[in-house]
Amino acid sequence: MRAFESAHKSDPGPMPHIVCYEKQSDLGGMWNYTWRTGLDQHGEPVHGSMYRFLWSNGPKECLEFADYSFEEHFGRPIPSYPPRAVLHDYIMGRVDQSDARKYIRFDTAVRQVEWIESGDGTGTGHFDVTAVDHRAGTRRTESFDYVIVATGHFSTPNVPYFDGLEDFPGRVLHAHDFRDAREFTGKRLLLVGSSYSAEDIGTQCHKYGAAEVTFSYRTAPMGHTWPTGLSEVPLLTGVDGSTAHFADGSSRDVDAIILCTGYQHHFPFLSDALTLTTDNRLYPRGIYKGVVSQENPQLFFLGMQDQYFTFNMFDAQAWYVRDVILGRVELPDHASREADVDEWCAREELLDGPIQEIDFQAAYIRDLVDRTDYPEFHVEKQGELFKQWKKDKKNDIMGYRNCSYVSTLTGNVAPPLPDRWMNIMDDSAESFLKQEFGATSPAATASTQPRIPTHEPIRTPQPA
Amino acid sequence: MRAFESAHKSDPGPMPHIVCYEKQSDLGGMWNYTWRTGLDQHGEPVHGSMYRFLWSNGPKECLEFADYSFEEHFGRPIPSYPPRAVLHDYIMGRVDQSDARKYIRFDTAVRQVEWIESGDGTGTGHFDVTAVDHRAGTRRTESFDYVIVATGHFSTPNVPYFDGLEDFPGRVLHAHDFRDAREFTGKRLLLVGSSYSAEDIGTQCHKYGAAEVTFSYRTAPMGHTWPTGLSEVPLLTGVDGSTAHFADGSSRDVDAIILCTGYQHHFPFLSDALTLTTDNRLYPRGIYKGVVSQENPQLFFLGMQDQYFTFNMFDAQAWYVRDVILGRVELPDHASREADVDEWCAREELLDGPIQEIDFQAAYIRDLVDRTDYPEFHVEKQGELFKQWKKDKKNDIMGYRNCSYVSTLTGNVAPPLPDRWMNIMDDSAESFLKQEFGATSPAATASTQPRIPTHEPIRTPQPA
Repeated sequence: MRAFESAHKSDPGPMPHIVCYEKQSDLGGMWNYTWRTGLDQHGEPVHGSMYRFLWSNGPKECLEFADYSFEEHFGRPIPSYPPRAVLHDYIMGRVDQSDARKYIRFDTAVRQVEWIESGDGTGTGHFDVTAVDHRAGTRRTESFDYVIVATGHFSTPNVPYFDGLEDFPGRVLHAHDFRDAREFTGKRLLLVGSSYSAEDIGTQCHKYGAAEVTFSYRTAPMGHTWPTGLSEVPLLTGVDGSTAHFADGSSRDVDAIILCTGYQHHFPFLSDALTLTTDNRLYPRGIYKGVVSQENPQLFFLGMQDQYFTFNMFDAQAWYVRDVILGRVELPDHASREADVDEWCAREELLDGPIQEIDFQAAYIRDLVDRTDYPEFHVEKQGELFKQWKKDKKNDIMGYRNCSYVSTLTGNVAPPLPDRWMNIMDDSAESFLKQEFGATSPAATASTQPRIPTHEPIRTPQPA
Repeated sequence: MRAFESAHKSDPGPMPHIVCYEKQSDLGGMWNYTWRTGLDQHGEPVHGSMYRFLWSNGPKECLEFADYSFEEHFGRPIPSYPPRAVLHDYIMGRVDQSDARKYIRFDTAVRQVEWIESGDGTGTGHFDVTAVDHRAGTRRTESFDYVIVATGHFSTPNVPYFDGLEDFPGRVLHAHDFRDAREFTGKRLLLVGSSYSAEDIGTQCHKYGAAEVTFSYRTAPMGHTWPTGLSEVPLLTGVDGSTAHFADGSSRDVDAIILCTGYQHHFPFLSDALTLTTDNRLYPRGIYKGVVSQENPQLFFLGMQDQYFTFNMFDAQAWYVRDVILGRVELPDHASREADVDEWCAREELLDGPIQEIDFQAAYIRDLVDRTDYPEFHVEKQGELFKQWKKDKKNDIMGYRNCSYVSTLTGNVAPPLPDRWMNIMDDSAESFLKQEFGATSPAATASTQPRIPTHEPIRTPQPA
C-alpha cells in the first residue's frame, strides 16, 4: 500500500488520531494492476510496477501473515505460486478483518512534510503535512506528532542512459512501465539487468511468445539453464540503430529494450534533513531497527529494506512502530541507537551470498518480533523455505513454480498447480480459484511429489 | 523552456536578481527530444512530449521572433516546414544572443511556491520558493518578490479510461509517451482524439509504415481527405480483447492504442489560492492580459493559452511581464483588471471557427505588443498566413508541408522542400541543412509555385 500515515500524539485515550494519505484510488499498493504508465489520471507518477500475468516469484508460504493463513482466507489449501490477483485477494482479506479503510484518504498525494520545532528550546515539535486531495481538488496542511513513510521503494525507476538509445528504432522502456508481454510476441527483446525484474519479465515474455530474449548483466549473469531463445551477455555498451553492442564485443539486433535497472528510494515530499538516502540493501543506515529515523525519532519508515521477507516483515515493523508511538517500547538514546545500527550494518557487510542474507533478514525480523506482541511465527523456518526456493529456481528457472512448500502456519503442504506453469496462460483469480486442487495433508503429501522448498518472497521489480 | 523564474524586487539598480529554475538538463523546453518516458533520471515526470521525426506542423513564418528571422539565423532562406532539430537550432540561436543561460539552474525542480504575507496589514509580501537541485542533491527555499510560471501546459497528459483497457493485449499509451513511429510499423493503430496530436502522430505513423490508422473522435471528425489506410470513426466506447468498439456500433481489431486526449494545466507546486485552473482556451480566466494572476499580481503565467501563435506570443507576454515588474507598465486596480478579462472572455465565447480564433489571438498579441517596446512585427499578416495554412492542410493533409510561405520579417518566400515531405525519412538537422534549397526572392517566387499561406504555429501535442 502506498500509505502515508500520521498520528496525533496529543489526542486523549489509547487510540491516536490516524490519517493515511494514499495516492492511489484504492488499497493494494504494488499489488494493484493498472494499465496506466508514466503519470496517472491526476498527473501523479504512477505508483505501480505491476504487470499482467505476474505470478508470485516466491512461495506464498514465505509471505504468509502470522495471524492470517492462506488456508484461512481461501478456505482450503492452494498452490504455492499463485497469480497476482489471488495474492491481491489474500491481502485484501487481511485488510478487511480490520477497520483500516476508514483511516485512509484515497487519491491524496503528499506534497511536503515539514518539521516545525516548538521553539521553546526543548527540541520538541510536530510535522506539518501538506497534501493534495484530488477528489476534492484541494490542497491543505495538517499537523501531526508522528509521520510514518510507507511509500515503498519500487516505484521510482532508476533509468541509466546508454549510448544511442535516442536513435533506437523501437520501444525503450523501464521495467516499471512494462505491462503486457503480448506486446512483444514475436519480438527480439533486450533486457538490461540481472535481478528479479529481468528474470521475471524475460521468462514471462518467453512464455507469451517473444522470439528471443537477451539478458545483459553488469556484474554477473543469473546463470540459469535457459531454454532455447533466452541467453545472457555482458553489459550493454551502446546501441547503433537496432543493433545492441555488449562489453564482450558481441552484438545483436533487437526490436525493443527493457531496462530492468532497479529503483530509487525517492521521497520528493521530504526535506534533506528528514529524507532517507540509501541504496537497496538489507540494513539501510539512518533508521534504527530498520524503521525509526535517526534524524527525528518521530519519523518512521516501513519496508525500506532490500527484501527476502516482505508482508510479514512489514507487519513486524508496523507492530514495532506502533509500540514506539504508544510508548510501549522505549527508545534508547541517540548514541545507543546509532551503535545498534552500526552493529547490524557491520554484520550485513560480512554476508556472503543469499543463504547468509536470508538468515540475516530472519534475525532482523526476530529482533523486531521479540520486542512486541506480534503473533509468533516461524521466521527461521520460512528462511529455510527461502533457501529451498533458491535451489528450486536453480534447478529449473522455467519450472520452479510447479513446486509446493509447507505452510509454517498450518503445517500443510500446498497442492500442486493443476498444470505446468508454462502452460497456464490465464492468470485471473476466477480461473485459478475454480480449480479443484489436489487435496493434501501433512501425512499425505510428505511422501509424494512436493519438495520442501526454501524461498525468497515476492520480489516484484527490483534493481539489477 | 520549462522555466520557472523569479525576481527579487528589493535589489538596487535596474536589473533585478533573476533565478530560473529548470527541471530539464538544458534549454529548449518542449523542443528537446528525449527517449525517456514517464519519469526522468531524477524521478521527475518527463517534461517532453516531443517525438522523433516531428516536423513543424505550421509554417515557420508564423513563429518567427520579431527580432530574429530564420534567414538571419541560418544565413539563407530555408523551407517553411523544418524538422524539429532545425527549429530547436533556431530557438537556441536566439537564446545565445543573450546571456540568459547564466540565470538558469538546470536539473532543478520546484516543489513549492508559498506566498508569505508581510503581516503588517498592507497586504504586501513575498514568495518562498522551495526547489530540489538534483545536481547538488539539495533542497532549499529562497525568497522572491515575483514569480513567473512558464512551465507550459503540454506536459501532464489527460488520460481518460475506456472500458477494457486493462485487458487490451498490446501497448496503450498517451501521445505524451509517443517517441518513435517505427515501433508501430506494420501495426494497426487506434488513435483516440481529433486534434493536433492525433493528426500528426497518425500521419507520421502512416509515413513510417503503420498498416492501418484509425482515428476516433468525440465531437467531430477532422474531416481530411485521408489516404488509404487512415480513417475516422466516432468515439471509442470500449475494448474487448484487441477489438475496439465505437459509438456507431462499428468495431475494429487493433494492435496498439494511442490516447491523443490532450493535456492538463498542472502546477503541483502551487497552492489552491495561487494556482491557475483552466481548460485549454484562448483566454483563460484568472489572468489579466493573459499573464498577471488576479489572485496575486506579483505572480505571472506565460503561455497558458490555447495556441495558434506561439514563440512570438510568448515573447510579447514576456516583454509585458518584464515591464510590469520593472514598473514601466502600471496595473489598473483589481476590479478594472477583472472587467478587462471579462471583456476578452466574452469576445472569445462569440468566436465561430478557426478564422475568427486566429484574428482573436492576433488582437490579443497586438494589445500586448502595443504596451511595450517589443519590436514591431506583423502579427495580423501572420494571422493571414495561419488562415492560408488552414486551407493548405484542408487541401492535402499529407502534402501541406510542401507549401511555402512569405516571411513577414524579410518579405522573402521560403524555398520548397527538396522532395515531397512524405519521401524525406531523415529528419536530422545535418541532413536538412546540407541541402541546396532553391534560391528564392520576393520577385522570383511570387509568380512560381509557392502559395502564400496562412497558418497555425507549431501545435505539438494538444488536447483532442
